Amino acid sequence: MQIGIIGGTGAEGRGLAARLAAAGVPLLLGSRTIERAREAVERLRASGAALPVEAATNDAVVDQSDIVFLAVPFAAAGEFVSTYAARFRPGTVVVDLTVPMRFVNRAPVFEEVPEGSAAEYLRARLPPEVRLAAALKTIPASVLSRLDISLDCDEFVCADSPEARVAAVDVLARIPGLRLLDAGGLDAARTLERMTLLAVQINMRYHVRTARYRVVGV
Amino acid sequence: MQIGIIGGTGAEGRGLAARLAAAGVPLLLGSRTIERAREAVERLRASGAALPVEAATNDAVVDQSDIVFLAVPFAAAGEFVSTYAARFRPGTVVVDLTVPMRFVNRAPVFEEVPEGSAAEYLRARLPPEVRLAAALKTIPASVLSRLDISLDCDEFVCADSPEARVAAVDVLARIPGLRLLDAGGLDAARTLERMTLLAVQINMRYHVRTARYRVVGV
Repeated sequence: MQIGIIGGTGAEGRGLAARLAAAGVPLLLGSRTIERAREAVERLRASGAALPVEAATNDAVVDQSDIVFLAVPFAAAGEFVSTYAARFRPGTVVVDLTVPMRFVNRAPVFEEVPEGSAAEYLRARLPPEVRLAAALKTIPASVLSRLDISLDCDEFVCADSPEARVAAVDVLARIPGLRLLDAGGLDAARTLERMTLLAVQINMRYHVRTARYRVVGV
Repeated sequence: MQIGIIGGTGAEGRGLAARLAAAGVPLLLGSRTIERAREAVERLRASGAALPVEAATNDAVVDQSDIVFLAVPFAAAGEFVSTYAARFRPGTVVVDLTVPMRFVNRAPVFEEVPEGSAAEYLRARLPPEVRLAAALKTIPASVLSRLDISLDCDEFVCADSPEARVAAVDVLARIPGLRLLDAGGLDAARTLERMTLLAVQINMRYHVRTARYRVVGV
């Protein structure tokens, strides 16, 4: 199973790449240009560890990966999917990490998406033979990218199919400290994306950068 | 400060009444008829403790309470607020516990509310001199009413004003095991109400009845 990350140079993508690589998961770190991808890989390797991560263009990530994590901002994700929809190999599982949220004067603003959620927006633009899961939505990039913080939280996975859910869970379960909960179909992203907004607002209100969720009683 | 509960005979209202009374908070337990309210109070007292809870009609709760917890189903809450809008004393704080969710063939179905959330729906129907907070939305009634379960979770309070938030927090902070987090304005209820749906779905999927949330990192 080849795993790739689109948006590996952003905070969320770097955090995911670092956590997966540290767990020994081989992956392609993708960016628009190979130069930026190489810089990001070199920064990851600056920790000294021999991490199983290779730089790649987004094209190469799409062409070579069985599971593609989409860790770009929501606006870029729409553009990305439009550009690459026909290029994904049938059976590819895309894992959507996006949240339709912008910052206006440093305040988070939620964007209503006509499809109900970013995940459903992407689903509507992907060919049927590409499967979609959504995960890691409720972990702000500020937490994911802080490798000194053990996650110690739950993350919710929703998907358009059992295959996509299993693929996403199998990869993410290798990250220490993360418990994965089955959140059902893609419409659960309507909840999960808003929970990120709430976590960011709580971060601001309580002057922390580390708010994330745990489900008690399960 | 007189505290009252509308819907004190339902699972959520009974749970709230039991937890507040056990914490020594004097309150009026309201129902449509005084007989049903008395039955609920007697059931609470069957535990043997001398609980500071009195039976009342909904009319009496509205007439006598400074803080009114609204623990009826969402459909009934709309009807209740329409009926009582003009009767609330100015300065009353209403605390909304409702979630726009129904069960169809035992499956939870979320109702889209044009105002964005049940809390905003109620706000639109209350006179301006009545203040509104929303709380305990993400704790399913199945958890709240199980007094043998320590809550051990966080609950989110959002409100239309600082006064309403403070009033709700001051009362609820007396329940042991509950940490209250400031979730901001009433529009946060759009997130909180959906989180209840997710908790109920997780309960069903993992065969528990106890799912609730804790925010890690705050």
